[in-house]
Parts: sequence; structure tokens; C-alpha cells
Amino acid sequence: MLSREEERASILRILVATDCHLGYLEKDEVRRFDSFETFEEICSLAEKNKVDFLLLGGDLFHESKPSNSTLVKTIEILRLYCMNDRPVQFQVISDQAASLQNRFGQVNYEDQNYNIGLPIFTIHGNHDDPAGVDNVSSNDILSAGNLLNYFGKTDLGCTGVGKVTVYPVFIRKGETYVALYGLGNIRDERLNRMLHEPHAVKWVQPETGDGTPAYDDWFNILVIHQNRTKGSPRNGISELLLPRFLDLVIWGHEHECLIDPKEVPGMGFHVTQPGSSIATSLIDAEAKPKHVLLMEIKGTQYRPTKIPLQSVRPFEYAEVVLEDQVDVDPSDEATIHAHLHQIMSNLIEKARESAVTGLMHKLPLVRIKVDYSGFSTINSKQFGQKYVGKVANPQDILLFKKSGKRCKITQESTNSPGEVDMNELNQQTIEALISETNLQMEILSVHDLNSALHDFVNEDDKSAFHSCLQQSIEEARNKLTTAPEDSTDIDEQQISCVLDQNTQAPEKGTTAKRRTGSLNLQTTDTLSVFEEPRALESDDEPVESSDVEESGGSSQQAGRKRRAAPAAAAAGGRRKTDLASFQRAPTKEEDADAAKKRRAPVAAGRYGAVIRRR
Amino acid sequence: MLSREEERASILRILVATDCHLGYLEKDEVRRFDSFETFEEICSLAEKNKVDFLLLGGDLFHESKPSNSTLVKTIEILRLYCMNDRPVQFQVISDQAASLQNRFGQVNYEDQNYNIGLPIFTIHGNHDDPAGVDNVSSNDILSAGNLLNYFGKTDLGCTGVGKVTVYPVFIRKGETYVALYGLGNIRDERLNRMLHEPHAVKWVQPETGDGTPAYDDWFNILVIHQNRTKGSPRNGISELLLPRFLDLVIWGHEHECLIDPKEVPGMGFHVTQPGSSIATSLIDAEAKPKHVLLMEIKGTQYRPTKIPLQSVRPFEYAEVVLEDQVDVDPSDEATIHAHLHQIMSNLIEKARESAVTGLMHKLPLVRIKVDYSGFSTINSKQFGQKYVGKVANPQDILLFKKSGKRCKITQESTNSPGEVDMNELNQQTIEALISETNLQMEILSVHDLNSALHDFVNEDDKSAFHSCLQQSIEEARNKLTTAPEDSTDIDEQQISCVLDQNTQAPEKGTTAKRRTGSLNLQTTDTLSVFEEPRALESDDEPVESSDVEESGGSSQQAGRKRRAAPAAAAAGGRRKTDLASFQRAPTKEEDADAAKKRRAPVAAGRYGAVIRRR
Repeated sequence: MLSREEERASILRILVATDCHLGYLEKDEVRRFDSFETFEEICSLAEKNKVDFLLLGGDLFHESKPSNSTLVKTIEILRLYCMNDRPVQFQVISDQAASLQNRFGQVNYEDQNYNIGLPIFTIHGNHDDPAGVDNVSSNDILSAGNLLNYFGKTDLGCTGVGKVTVYPVFIRKGETYVALYGLGNIRDERLNRMLHEPHAVKWVQPETGDGTPAYDDWFNILVIHQNRTKGSPRNGISELLLPRFLDLVIWGHEHECLIDPKEVPGMGFHVTQPGSSIATSLIDAEAKPKHVLLMEIKGTQYRPTKIPLQSVRPFEYAEVVLEDQVDVDPSDEATIHAHLHQIMSNLIEKARESAVTGLMHKLPLVRIKVDYSGFSTINSKQFGQKYVGKVANPQDILLFKKSGKRCKITQESTNSPGEVDMNELNQQTIEALISETNLQMEILSVHDLNSALHDFVNEDDKSAFHSCLQQSIEEARNKLTTAPEDSTDIDEQQISCVLDQNTQAPEKGTTAKRRTGSLNLQTTDTLSVFEEPRALESDDEPVESSDVEESGGSSQQAGRKRRAAPAAAAAGGRRKTDLASFQRAPTKEEDADAAKKRRAPVAAGRYGAVIRRR
Repeated sequence: MLSREEERASILRILVATDCHLGYLEKDEVRRFDSFETFEEICSLAEKNKVDFLLLGGDLFHESKPSNSTLVKTIEILRLYCMNDRPVQFQVISDQAASLQNRFGQVNYEDQNYNIGLPIFTIHGNHDDPAGVDNVSSNDILSAGNLLNYFGKTDLGCTGVGKVTVYPVFIRKGETYVALYGLGNIRDERLNRMLHEPHAVKWVQPETGDGTPAYDDWFNILVIHQNRTKGSPRNGISELLLPRFLDLVIWGHEHECLIDPKEVPGMGFHVTQPGSSIATSLIDAEAKPKHVLLMEIKGTQYRPTKIPLQSVRPFEYAEVVLEDQVDVDPSDEATIHAHLHQIMSNLIEKARESAVTGLMHKLPLVRIKVDYSGFSTINSKQFGQKYVGKVANPQDILLFKKSGKRCKITQESTNSPGEVDMNELNQQTIEALISETNLQMEILSVHDLNSALHDFVNEDDKSAFHSCLQQSIEEARNKLTTAPEDSTDIDEQQISCVLDQNTQAPEKGTTAKRRTGSLNLQTTDTLSVFEEPRALESDDEPVESSDVEESGGSSQQAGRKRRAAPAAAAAGGRRKTDLASFQRAPTKEEDADAAKKRRAPVAAGRYGAVIRRR
């Protein structure tokens, strides 16, 4: 019986959720409490399941400057659920000040003045990212108040690609050792560049010996909050760019619930995408049932259990192509109305049925995407008036789009371009919008414009564009004064004409800068850098191969252990595990090169070797 | 020795400060930390002087929506100073939920999950007043996080004069009983009306017996945050409107430090005006040394000790009338420059000298108010450039004003009208600005416009004016439809002409509404209500006399005790007291009427009788 107890004392239980968007639609009469109710449900699930801690994947807040009301409600919920006498049964054994960003430099439950029973760890997302002179995130408010443990915060500086060292939180519970890496949201474009750049991202790994186990006995989790792409690196991060020593990646930001951990072929880790706890876009992907994930980790094995969220407002989604409907007549608008009302009636009925199982009585969200090619649109507001008091969003039930061909349901991506919906615009990042237009500017770099636009929108910095313009012109002027041509007294119009002459100017700068002759002056900082020919050895593992050249650490990576996979991804020879049969994954031999590298000491706490970009 | 100990155990020690304006000028490179440094000094003084609690008079925050950075810095300071093992040695014996506005309904130090060593009590000011649908103040954020005890919050509703019941915090330490009344900022105009209105303000008093002492053994403190006027009730509150059972009024909002408690003749209480802990206007009143007040209360006697604040940025102020200067020539601008630079040099020297005593090395604030009648102004920005790095405010050193006659130093009021200074504008309330212009509008009431302007500016409500206009027109229309003349299809221009015909319309409404025939339709809600002839019996105690008519409680008030006065106000027959000689003030006989009234029971906690407006 004792060994059973000991075994239990080694099982680290984590509840994983993300994108709670507290304060979302806080001014909407019907939906204003939605985000808080579900967050409270998540906290109560954490309590009910007696987890060791709650792990959030960013966007806890919907706004970078949450309203007073949102802050109060959030703090009240945290205080209700986090403060109690339950003993915390794990230890953080790394240098806490290195991974946790607050003045007190320790995990919240170790502060003797607070009685924390449920610790929460979170990174920031794109909605609650640090900003301003002090690089402060709304999460810092909660962290300062000792209500959560905010990790994964980075201060990249304003210029260049930037560098970041990811100090994980090393967690020990009994014989289970978990390295929890966090990387709060960085603009996709920039993180993409950093992940391609040698030495730009450093992953600190545990130091072995001295009571802590060997590398292979650590379970490595990364929490990340980015757009997720499997192919093109343009507007998101590819899983293939992440380091292979990881065992599990918790992917925030994507609102679609794809919570069952799924293996990434060739990378040796699984990805779980919990999805948001609240629908902020009325798209198909958000209509799927929302879940959180209970992770039980023992040694290097884990068991994921998805838990449905009951408090989420029902959301029914349908698509209709008017052309294909036999009962709709292009010359008779009434038939369109009748048809759409019929669909509405079905959807509301469906919502009511699903609501009964959830014991909830919330008005449902309903969205019908109407392909109206060959028809005229009907008045969407007028249509919705019939549903006031019956659905939660009468004002925007219908979404019209034009071409039936273009918009076949794209299951691959959460954002389906080609239609305009204000909610979706909210979801889309400014950077993505700019990059979509594929601007090719010669003086103003997309990067600088992005920053300016970001400062303008998110930081209320009204002089952002002006400063950006001034600075760019100044820079261009300076460049031109070193150029062979006469260029001391030029204006903005002239600059763009002169720039091409400037590509022969002597190239100074850091090794981080790579420039090809065909690129314009400022475009080293633009997206087009991704289009440079790169030394990729194979298409299958494009990034891995570049590692060989640059860090010499590939042999270490190549021999990485393969962990027992979770139940949901048992295919492909991986064993399905459950808690009763947790097994140690076979340790594989480490080659001499890798062993050498791993021995490299590190000053801070128990941190060991640094892996430079995988 | 034991009795000495017991005596000490009955001395309640309070540190009083106000108007800390955290976050003031947080974007100014030089001054951004000023507010935080002084607040930290105040907290450290509380710690050093081993006070029982820190009492703040409002405007803890400068902004109603403090930035993330300000919130983080504030929370960090509070956490550093409030959380510790020092035992809290007083009890709050009233119904805590009635006087403290938070979900948890108790004083922060009684929450077993927090280790509070230094409790803070605060009301809100006009800068951090509750707003929005949820009536949330920035103080609520700190209160939700259990970092302070926010009292004196009112929810007056949007229409009518409003009513408020002031539930005090009853504090007991040994044999000392203090009733701490708090009234967070209400627009002066409205509070004025409420204080004139019968039954609009109810002051709950302690229930006697059952272990608690008689009325006269309670020490009654009111914390208030309003403009302070001694005469006209227009833009401020007169001390004479406050209830006479009080012993001490702590007056926030006024930034001038007049911290020594001063008796209000005929009212039986003293007023201390601590003044802000940071200068937010560069006026003479703010140039005086800043202090906080240590209050030691034993029984019904108290000893006030003012403590100078060391961290306040030095501020030197001077006024000059160019006409009176012999070395200045109107036709030679250089002489003006020379003269002003000479003054600057003296002021900076003076600041340096005072800084040495304070051991601070902060750049001083300097303001020269220049009466330039008969001269032309000089370029203020250019003048200041010489002082970059020498003073903290090179951009606004000089303030020009025109007429030497109009602007003799008005020591009476902190705001000196007749000159334009952006800092002073900041300090002035919108309401004051509007009322200054003395608008006489017939459809739009000043009150509604005030509300709309407030919502527009402070709540970002862009439709505030539109709604206000619509509503007023609607109301006027409705009134007109009941008027004898035909008025169904009128426009805005017509309404004002028709209104006077409407004064004969039947008067409906509550007893709280008083209207004279000469008033226009909407003006019952405007300032002009104060100009109605009122039944005042004498000029000396104008409000007391109206009390006789309306609440019949004057006999109770007339016989109020007179407490031993503090040292600073010992004149007029009051005894100077110090801690070693605390004496019981003589109990005066209570008449039967008062005793009857006081026996009235009250449901909540130990609250006793309700005094309606004094």
C-alpha cells in the first residue's frame, strides 16, 4: 500500500487551459459574464480534480489594458480559488527569479504571507503581452499581487532580431521531474526569424547530477502562444522549428479545440492545442465543444484526459450555398428569408438539445455563413431582430460571402480569408493584415510599420507613425550620405529612387544580418528575408539540417529519446499508457559529442546546458 | 507599569495621508517615479511609527484607469509594506460588509489567507472614483486583492439627488472606540444638494450598551474628499454642512498642506487638511512643505503630530510683477530675460539649500508667475531650455498673466482663477469649469451635461452627449405634450420658447423635489436650486437652523459634547493635550429627545441610530 502511496506522490497533476480572454465583450448585455463564468469553471475543475497547478497558455485577458471591472472580477475569482489551505505538493527547484518575472522573484506559494493552495502558471499571449516603457503585461498585475506565476516573459528590445534565453521552471514532485518552458507571444514574424537565426533562442536545460536525474528522466513541456502553421512560415510558427528535446508542446492562441496530444512526425514531441475557453470568432472552428486537459505526469510518461467545459455558451454554426437550395428563388427574397429562418429554427433547436445535457440555459450563439453567389444579400440586422431574446448574437447571425468556389471549408486553418467579419478581424493580428497585402516598400520597413501600428493601436501612442516615418527617413538619409551619389539635400520622394544605388554600400553589422544583393535597403528587416535561399538539406526536416551547420549539436538531437505517447496518439507503434501502467521509456545511448555538450555548466541555479535553437 | 501598558494598549495610532496621485506624470522622464517614491515613504513612516493603520483620504491613484505599470508598482509597494507578521491590535466591531465594499465583506487583515501587518483604509477621491456599469473604482482592484480596505463608496444612482447612508467603521482598541465615517468623492454640486436635502444623507451612529460605551465615549472621524469652501456652496462643500457629532474631519482633495487640526467655530469639530503628497499643480499652495499626520487617539482625546515628507521633490515658487521691477525695460526684452534668470538662479539655490536638509538630490520644480502687464511675454519654452537638467520642469517654468490688479495672491483658495495653466486645468474638475461660465440653459440641465461630459471624458463614452441631448429633448417634448399649447410637432428651437408656458403644469414627484414658480423646467436639477430662498434662521449657522424645521433633531445636536482640542488649536479655551495627559472630556447631559432618538435600533451589526444630515 505504501508503494501505491509513493507512486501517487510522484504523479504531477496539471490542468491545462488557454485563451480565457477575460473581459471579452464585457459591454455586451448578454455575453458580458461569459469569459468569467468559464474561467471560474476552469478554476473549480482544478480544485475538483485536485491538480497540483493550473497551467494557462496565454491570453488570460482579452485586453492588454483590462478594465477596472475585469481586473476586479479576475482577482476575485483567483482569490476565491487559489487561496486556501491545500498543501502544495511539488517544488520548483530552478532559480525562480530567472524564470518568473516579478519583483519578488519566487513562486507565489512560497511567499509566507500568502496561503496559496492552487498555484497558477501562465505565459502571456498576444492580447496581454508586455508593453510600454516598463515592459509590463496585465499578467504582471496579478503576479505583483501574488495571484499567479507569470513566466515566459521576454524583453527583446526594439532593434534587430533580438535574442532570448528561455529559462524553464524545473518542477519536482517525488520522482517526477518536469522542465516547464514558456515562451510568451512574440510576433510570429519575429519569432520565426529568431528560430531561424543561430543563437537567437537559447533553451536552458537542467543540470544533471547532484540529486537531479539524467536528461532523459526529465519531462520537457513547452507552452507557446503563436499562430500555428504546418507549412508556410509566413504568419505563424511551424512545429518543425521547435527543439526536439521537448516531449509535449502546449499550443495557445489557436482557438480551435484540438486538445488530444498529437505527434509531430520526426520531431519526437506531441502537441496539444487546448483551444480557447470562449468563442471570440463565430467560425466553424470555435463551434466545436471546448475542453480543458488534465495531464497526469509520472516520470516521463503522461496520461492526458480531456474534460468538457459545461459553462461555455452554446454555439451552432452552419454554412449554406443558396445556389444549391431547391426552395430558394433568386427573384424572390422571401424564399431566402424562409430558408434561412428554417435553418435558424433547426440550429436553435440543436442548441437547446445540447444545452440540456450541459444543464445550461444560456442563449446560444448562432452563425450562418451564406454563400449568396447569384443572389442578393438580405438585411442582416433586420433578419436578426426576430431572434432578440432567442440567441445571444441577433446582430450578427448571418455572414454573407460571395464566391462558392473560393470558400470551400478550409479545415486546415482557423482563419478563413476571403470574407469579412468583424469578429474575425479582432482575432487577426495587425501584422497578418499588413503582411497579407504583401507590401513591398523601400523606405518604410514592414517591421517598423508593424511596431508603429502596434504602438498606435495597443499603446495609444499617437505619435507612433510619425516617429516611425521620421526615423526611417533619417536612416535612409544617413545611408544616402555614405552613398557615392550626391544625396545631402533630398526629400522623401527622391529617396526611393536613389535607394537601389545604395545596395553596393559597404555592409556592416552583426553576423545576425544576412542580406542578398537583390534585397532593398530596409528589407533585411522585412518578411522577404524568409524568401532567401537557405541551406536546407532536406525538405522533411528543413530546420534540423541547418542545425548541423550552425551549432554542431545535431548528433545530440538525432539520438533523442522517444517517449511513450499518450493514448490519443497511440498509432505508429507508440504504446498507449494509462496511470496504472506508467512505464519508464527505454533510455537510449548518448553519444560522446552530446555528453560533452551537456556537461557545460551554467551559472544560475540548477540550470544546465543551453541548447541553441534545437 | 502594567497600567502604563494597558494605557498604551488603548492608544490607537493612525497615520493620515491623502492625495498620493500614484501614476502622476508617469510618462515624464524626470518625474515619473515621484508619486511612488513618496507613497513608499508614507508606508515606511507607517511602519516606522508602528501605527495601527494607514488612513488615506482619496486620490490614491491619479487616473481612474491606472496604467498596468502604475498598478504593478502600487501593488508591489503595498505588498512590501502591508504584508508582514506584525500583529494588528485593533478590532473592527461593526458590520464589516456594510462599510467595506468588496465581495469578501471583511477587513483585509481578518482574511486568514493573508498575513496583513499594516492595514490601510481609504475612501476614493475624484480621480479614482467608481464608474461604469459595475460602479468600479481603481481602489476596488486593490481591495479585491485584499491589499486595502476601501470604504466610503456610494452608489447614488443616475437620477434625482440620490440618497446615501454612511455606515462607519467602528474601531476598538482597548478602551478607545472610534467611529470612522467615510464619504468618497461625490460631485460637489450634488453633495451640496444632498446635504441640504432632508433625509438624503444618513449618518449611522453606534448602538450603545451591550459592551460598547455611550455615544460620548466614541471618537468620531469623517474622511471626506471634496473641494473645501468656507463661504459659497457653489464649487465646494462648506464645513458648516457637516454633522456636529463629529470630532475630527480629515479633508482630502485640497492639495495645500494645512495639516494642523483647526477648529470650526460653532461646529464642535476640527478639520485637518493633510494636503497631497505630491504637487500636481505648480501653484503657491503646493510649494509649501508636504506632511503626513500621526494621530494618537486615546478615548476621546487625540494628539496630532505632523511628520514632514522627505522624498517630495523640492518646489520653489515666486511671483513677479514686471512693472514694479526697476531693472526691467519694456522696450528691451533682454532685461526681462536677465531679470527672470536672476530669479531662477535664486530659486534654484534656495531649492538646493532646502534639499540638503532633506538629503535629497532631486531636480527641483520651479515656477515663476509673471505679471507682464505693460510688457510682452517672452518665449517660455526657449527660456526653459537653459534649465534642462537643472530643474524638473524646464518646459513650464514661466506662467504669464495679464492683470496685476486681478491676481493678487488669493491665499484663501487653492485654485486661483484668471490664469491658464495646463497643470491647474488638470486639477480643476470639469464641473467647476462648466459652472464657472455660469450657464443658464433651459432644456439641457447643467447637471445632465456634467454627467455627459464626465462620461465622455472619464468613461470613454462617445455617445454621452448625444444621449444626453436626445434624452433632454425627449423629456422636454413629454412635458410639452401635457402643456396647454399645441406642442406635438416641435423642434429644438421651439422648445425653449414654449418652456415658460409650462410652469403651470401640475407638479408631481417626490417630496425631495422643491421648485419655485420662477424656475424653468429643467432647472430643478441645476445649480440654480441653490439660489432659491431658503428658510435659514441665521447667517452664522445657516444649515443648523434648517435642520430644526426638517428633521427635528436639533436638540440632540445642540447639546453635543465638546472634545478636548488638539495642541495646534489650543486657542479659544481648549486644553492642549499630550499623550501623557490624555484626559476624559467632561460628559454633558443628554436631553430626553436625543436619548429617544438614539435608542432607535438598526438591523445591521452594532449600528445604532441614524442621524439624518447632521
